[in-house]
Amino acid sequence: MTEVAPGVVRDAVARALAEDLGPLGDITAALLDPSERGSAAFVPRKPGVLAGTACATETFAQVDTSVSVRWSAVDGDRVAAGQAIGTVEGPLASILTAERTALNFLCHLSGVATLTRRFVDAVESAPGSRARIWDTRKTLPGLRALEKAAVRAGGGVNHRGSLSEMVLVKDNHLGRLGITEAVRRARERWPGRTVEVECERIEQVLEAVDSGADLVMLDNMSPDDVAQCVDLVGRRAVVEVSGGVTLETVARYASTGADLISTSAITQSAPAFDIGLDLFHRDDQLHASS
Amino acid sequence: MTEVAPGVVRDAVARALAEDLGPLGDITAALLDPSERGSAAFVPRKPGVLAGTACATETFAQVDTSVSVRWSAVDGDRVAAGQAIGTVEGPLASILTAERTALNFLCHLSGVATLTRRFVDAVESAPGSRARIWDTRKTLPGLRALEKAAVRAGGGVNHRGSLSEMVLVKDNHLGRLGITEAVRRARERWPGRTVEVECERIEQVLEAVDSGADLVMLDNMSPDDVAQCVDLVGRRAVVEVSGGVTLETVARYASTGADLISTSAITQSAPAFDIGLDLFHRDDQLHASS
Amino acid sequence: MTEVAPGVVRDAVARALAEDLGPLGDITAALLDPSERGSAAFVPRKPGVLAGTACATETFAQVDTSVSVRWSAVDGDRVAAGQAIGTVEGPLASILTAERTALNFLCHLSGVATLTRRFVDAVESAPGSRARIWDTRKTLPGLRALEKAAVRAGGGVNHRGSLSEMVLVKDNHLGRLGITEAVRRARERWPGRTVEVECERIEQVLEAVDSGADLVMLDNMSPDDVAQCVDLVGRRAVVEVSGGVTLETVARYASTGADLISTSAITQSAPAFDIGLDLFHRDDQLHASS
Amino acid sequence: MTEVAPGVVRDAVARALAEDLGPLGDITAALLDPSERGSAAFVPRKPGVLAGTACATETFAQVDTSVSVRWSAVDGDRVAAGQAIGTVEGPLASILTAERTALNFLCHLSGVATLTRRFVDAVESAPGSRARIWDTRKTLPGLRALEKAAVRAGGGVNHRGSLSEMVLVKDNHLGRLGITEAVRRARERWPGRTVEVECERIEQVLEAVDSGADLVMLDNMSPDDVAQCVDLVGRRAVVEVSGGVTLETVARYASTGADLISTSAITQSAPAFDIGLDLFHRDDQLHASS
Amino acid sequence: MTEVAPGVVRDAVARALAEDLGPLGDITAALLDPSERGSAAFVPRKPGVLAGTACATETFAQVDTSVSVRWSAVDGDRVAAGQAIGTVEGPLASILTAERTALNFLCHLSGVATLTRRFVDAVESAPGSRARIWDTRKTLPGLRALEKAAVRAGGGVNHRGSLSEMVLVKDNHLGRLGITEAVRRARERWPGRTVEVECERIEQVLEAVDSGADLVMLDNMSPDDVAQCVDLVGRRAVVEVSGGVTLETVARYASTGADLISTSAITQSAPAFDIGLDLFHRDDQLHASS
Amino acid sequence: MTEVAPGVVRDAVARALAEDLGPLGDITAALLDPSERGSAAFVPRKPGVLAGTACATETFAQVDTSVSVRWSAVDGDRVAAGQAIGTVEGPLASILTAERTALNFLCHLSGVATLTRRFVDAVESAPGSRARIWDTRKTLPGLRALEKAAVRAGGGVNHRGSLSEMVLVKDNHLGRLGITEAVRRARERWPGRTVEVECERIEQVLEAVDSGADLVMLDNMSPDDVAQCVDLVGRRAVVEVSGGVTLETVARYASTGADLISTSAITQSAPAFDIGLDLFHRDDQLHASS
Repeated sequence: MTEVAPGVVRDAVARALAEDLGPLGDITAALLDPSERGSAAFVPRKPGVLAGTACATETFAQVDTSVSVRWSAVDGDRVAAGQAIGTVEGPLASILTAERTALNFLCHLSGVATLTRRFVDAVESAPGSRARIWDTRKTLPGLRALEKAAVRAGGGVNHRGSLSEMVLVKDNHLGRLGITEAVRRARERWPGRTVEVECERIEQVLEAVDSGADLVMLDNMSPDDVAQCVDLVGRRAVVEVSGGVTLETVARYASTGADLISTSAITQSAPAFDIGLDLFHRDDQLHASS
Repeated sequence: MTEVAPGVVRDAVARALAEDLGPLGDITAALLDPSERGSAAFVPRKPGVLAGTACATETFAQVDTSVSVRWSAVDGDRVAAGQAIGTVEGPLASILTAERTALNFLCHLSGVATLTRRFVDAVESAPGSRARIWDTRKTLPGLRALEKAAVRAGGGVNHRGSLSEMVLVKDNHLGRLGITEAVRRARERWPGRTVEVECERIEQVLEAVDSGADLVMLDNMSPDDVAQCVDLVGRRAVVEVSGGVTLETVARYASTGADLISTSAITQSAPAFDIGLDLFHRDDQLHASS
Repeated sequence: MTEVAPGVVRDAVARALAEDLGPLGDITAALLDPSERGSAAFVPRKPGVLAGTACATETFAQVDTSVSVRWSAVDGDRVAAGQAIGTVEGPLASILTAERTALNFLCHLSGVATLTRRFVDAVESAPGSRARIWDTRKTLPGLRALEKAAVRAGGGVNHRGSLSEMVLVKDNHLGRLGITEAVRRARERWPGRTVEVECERIEQVLEAVDSGADLVMLDNMSPDDVAQCVDLVGRRAVVEVSGGVTLETVARYASTGADLISTSAITQSAPAFDIGLDLFHRDDQLHASS
Repeated sequence: MTEVAPGVVRDAVARALAEDLGPLGDITAALLDPSERGSAAFVPRKPGVLAGTACATETFAQVDTSVSVRWSAVDGDRVAAGQAIGTVEGPLASILTAERTALNFLCHLSGVATLTRRFVDAVESAPGSRARIWDTRKTLPGLRALEKAAVRAGGGVNHRGSLSEMVLVKDNHLGRLGITEAVRRARERWPGRTVEVECERIEQVLEAVDSGADLVMLDNMSPDDVAQCVDLVGRRAVVEVSGGVTLETVARYASTGADLISTSAITQSAPAFDIGLDLFHRDDQLHASS
Repeated sequence: MTEVAPGVVRDAVARALAEDLGPLGDITAALLDPSERGSAAFVPRKPGVLAGTACATETFAQVDTSVSVRWSAVDGDRVAAGQAIGTVEGPLASILTAERTALNFLCHLSGVATLTRRFVDAVESAPGSRARIWDTRKTLPGLRALEKAAVRAGGGVNHRGSLSEMVLVKDNHLGRLGITEAVRRARERWPGRTVEVECERIEQVLEAVDSGADLVMLDNMSPDDVAQCVDLVGRRAVVEVSGGVTLETVARYASTGADLISTSAITQSAPAFDIGLDLFHRDDQLHASS
Repeated sequence: MTEVAPGVVRDAVARALAEDLGPLGDITAALLDPSERGSAAFVPRKPGVLAGTACATETFAQVDTSVSVRWSAVDGDRVAAGQAIGTVEGPLASILTAERTALNFLCHLSGVATLTRRFVDAVESAPGSRARIWDTRKTLPGLRALEKAAVRAGGGVNHRGSLSEMVLVKDNHLGRLGITEAVRRARERWPGRTVEVECERIEQVLEAVDSGADLVMLDNMSPDDVAQCVDLVGRRAVVEVSGGVTLETVARYASTGADLISTSAITQSAPAFDIGLDLFHRDDQLHASS
């Protein structure tokens, strides 16, 4: 079993191939001699963290079951620039047809994992930190399950996967309700579920904890305010920090003693991690074609 | 007719809502009084270029047909930080349930449009430039049609939408073929199609042009080399610059006289453009909830 | 917004109609004069609890948008035998074509709601009860979201909608792990999530509570053993009773002070609730056609 | 070739797994050591009739192709309580992830087969019976093909699979038409098709037979009335009994000489047949986890 | 309700539009001024029979709900060359984008209806004919329901829509079975179903009728042999003629007294019926663009 | 890698099987002894050109993976009447269940290839011809990719696969635009794309060439007019002939020196190519069952 549900990988790859192949397929690869074979290596151009290998493997399988793919690294591994992390071997036309779709998955998901890892490293080295990096529902449409797996590959942990999973009372829900009443309703309608409350002010934090919320999300507070809230909460609830967290500020938030620091940047704004598929030529040298 | 095929928008939104709602739907919005109504405004947090409004509209429609959405800006407009660019009105629970999915489309696609516009602006202000910003097939899996429309919204133009559309002979195709033979085969098998050849050296450029290629892609060349190639080609083929193009370098490439400058950054590495949905409260003031 | 995500209703109805209509459509209704109109009432044959009206409405809409459907009862209402709970009006052929599919949803989902309500009523009248009826993942394949909504209509509450939502450590997970280690790993990998532990013996209950589990599931225990566990837990965790719960025994379990009583019968073994669609004849009398 | 079209099984399983796995997959199984293997047996808790093995096998295959499933019984077999009817072997996490979905198919479809068999047994032991148990279109939405196969596994036979297959003129079609005209139209528009007419009174039966109907459905008649109709029909048409048939009454109906006795209970109201997946522990003893 | 199940039309159109629009949509229509409106008429180039209007209407609706479509003829009507049979009005770009897909449905399905009508006319004018034109399962993949409706529009009738609907014992099924045993098994396993037997020799016809088959298919017999078989069958079974039927020979077969004459030509080999969409110009004259 | 994208074949076959199998599957094949095996050969009834083998293979694989299919001819081969071009071997019931769907693909797509080849042969033997046969977007809905591959198998070449691929300015686009402005806009918005202009008069041809169009489509011109236009164009653009092209006239058009001759007949009006699946009997002789 892969880290992601197999149906998710299969459907995402089928959809991506359909959009890339079009009605006529790869009209350039069709110019090649069908008997020509090739082999190639996946090679990162920079150091980073790998994710998305199941999608890449599935892409080649869906294009041509006679292409073989082998990995020397697994999702979550830190990989070096220039390191061959996997190889493909088979009909050259098939390899070239599948290349871009496979790399689109690999580069985006490794990009998510790599940026997550940078946040995680920053947090882990912060003095007094016990914090984890939490993702959000700010993911790219249709890619949530894959991106959440990439976050895990990067050392992060997953917040809600969907609106079904957890009650998270935000400011916009509180118009008429009030925190105490919202938590009471949540307990009544969804017993056994985690209940979290978004708080912008200290008195909200206190009300949330007193009403029995499992988590409080401190929204857009300064590190000092967060530290004060952590003290006030005193382990009666899990504390999430959210809003305004960057690679520059995350360590300061981590040092406050907060449990979870969430950021949408890792899924919504992660730059692609550049991985190329380098063809082995007859003289067995790598040839770059990122 | 919207800029993107309606079926693409409908299916992408259905998929995104399915992954966000989960088996139980929005268990937090379910706590609200069903009769409570709300209205809210889409408000960018920074200046940028808008894209994805059709997806946002469709998201609210799929969640609840009684929610109305009105836009005061259209895809491609430059929008200012703090400017209300659209409003929604309807049952509050429905608005909150749809909010994140609608914003996920809007923020990603506006991110693509905004970054594209930055490249386009750089190119348009470069002395002697006639260049256009061209996208690539390095798009996020399942989102190509939407991202390509966002590139157009940002002032860019679209390279191939799929492998069916155009012959693009890359270095990896040339193992045994040679440029001249590849172009000959392309003309024979796919008459009436654009044929482009990726070139890394000047002699390849000359061979490509002599063999009748419609476009030459200059791969990873310096601006000086590009300028020399542009001269050599002498309008016999369209010249694309590819590889190593950044916001810092793009103006220098544009000044070479090249026709098209392609970059994967605009689709693959565009940070989300931060747009919030601000609820109007009873006192009619905006309340931020990005 | 309906109680169930609109996409779920739309897709379930489309699938059900496709399987019922077949390649030729309704070859019997095709014998009717196309201009003939009809009207009919939904009439329960017994008292029960209504659920599934959104699916029934959607069925008629997908068959023929000119059919109108009006309900005088809503999901969750107790309905009486013989009471007209809704009406349809439109082309007779369309009404008859849609009838069976609409009723299949309505009868199954109302069956789930009705049986749930019977359990809920039993629990609510038990002396000293504070228990709620909780559903399970033992649902009919492809119908989970609809059945879970029907459980809510019947007064029950929803356990996990999917394996993503909550950690539930069962006996089969514990081979090598041990409860304490399992809870520790769950907290580490899925912070902020509910963690429940299935327990068959009292010492397991104690270990689960001591390790910080949010819920303990008492599996196949007698009411007396449950009562003892409730005391031992002393509100440090939510207590679920599972296994061996029937309409006959549920009140005794409820009187133990347990918080949640789960049963698969309400989704997996609920008999259809018999609702007919009675055509109004020219003499305006109801005509039974269950 | 299985008893059910492979595409039906594949799609039903994919849909069921998607709803059970959710965006994060099985977050509990993720706590296990990935190298841990397991084996388990499918064990019925009561005697009954097996159905749905193809779906169960497909479920494990879709979760993890390295899990092997072997059956010692086939669909349609009577199975005993406590009898191991099949085994699975493979990575423990994969087995536990697939378990519930596989059992949901197996328990529901075996429930259908088991209840069907009870009706069939009652009919076969009735004096003078020549009747068969016929199913109806009252099936659970999306599960028709699977349930109809389960009815066959239980010894029943299948009425219409869809509205395309057969003309069945019900009372509601007869408003203006009259039986004779309805049968005439059916023969004209759908030559070569079976035509059945629902009858509530003896004179309708006579008209249906005289007009050349292939089958008459006797709706909600007493066994005595049915016997009288069977005599009157005198083998000129196939006689179906419908309405008011229960396990208590079915033998009396069978003894009337009717050909087919239809009941919706077997598909619409069949309680789940309880089958557990019992893990083999290191000491090779079965451990119950229904 | 249209003649074809709405879901069939919706899905077929969505699929056809997806394949025609591609990732970038209609890049030519995008050159037009978005505010330009147009109107156009559907005009047959030859006389024929209309079919497929529901698909054409749906195509425009899916491209742009603001386009209006009106028909002055309905499916099944004989239409004249040059006659305006329907009009569209709306944004010009939307009309042109939808045009080809709408016409592809209309021309193919009207082609089926037109060829069917030619067979039907030939049969109806044959002396002594009582025959109807029956279609087959030799349809174009994915278009069966639509083509079967077009056959009805042309005056033909529908044989099996799927393998589920009817037992048809062909020569290849008879290796070991024998006709009598095959019919016996069919009656036992599928009571209430039509049973047809394919026969190539007179003695097979007699065996089929004696064994109680409802229909006999006379395969590849001469008209004289068919006439002889019709006499021998003597109305004890419905007689289908199959194989070797052309527009030239069909009348002779019809005069034999056979009931049904089947031909695959009407679905599998029907030439497109040429219908153009003629734009109204400012001077209100039709302009041909087939 | 097959000639057509694997996902296209897989989905088209799944859809075709779903429509042919229906809810009960093949109720006739179900009468056979499940252990009976069979083998059969694909045998054309006339000479022609083969296409669609990948779909036929996939059909048997989706019905029963234990059926083996072997081909002695490949797509594009000219095949003779009576020649065994492939064989299947496996469970007889599975072979018969898959037979019709497999043949429906094979006969339609070979029909397209065969008719294309007739046009290609006519063109290749025309004196002075340099023309190729070009297909159109007039394809059967849902079958475009497969039909375009069949055209290639028949020696033809592919025009646009979708509206995304190429700019083709038709008369209906020109209302207000004018050719020169249309080509200018096309170059501006879609740089690097092929631009074609439909022309009905010589002055339009000249304007199109002068404005820089890559191709001119001569619509409904006589061969003499085409020859004159070819001279006038003088290789400055590729010349397509369209409209009024038949097997009788195509050679005269080819002799004009035009580059491409397009015809919708090859996709929209190709009669099925008759291929049968002949079962091997125990005496090892072929038995026809087309």
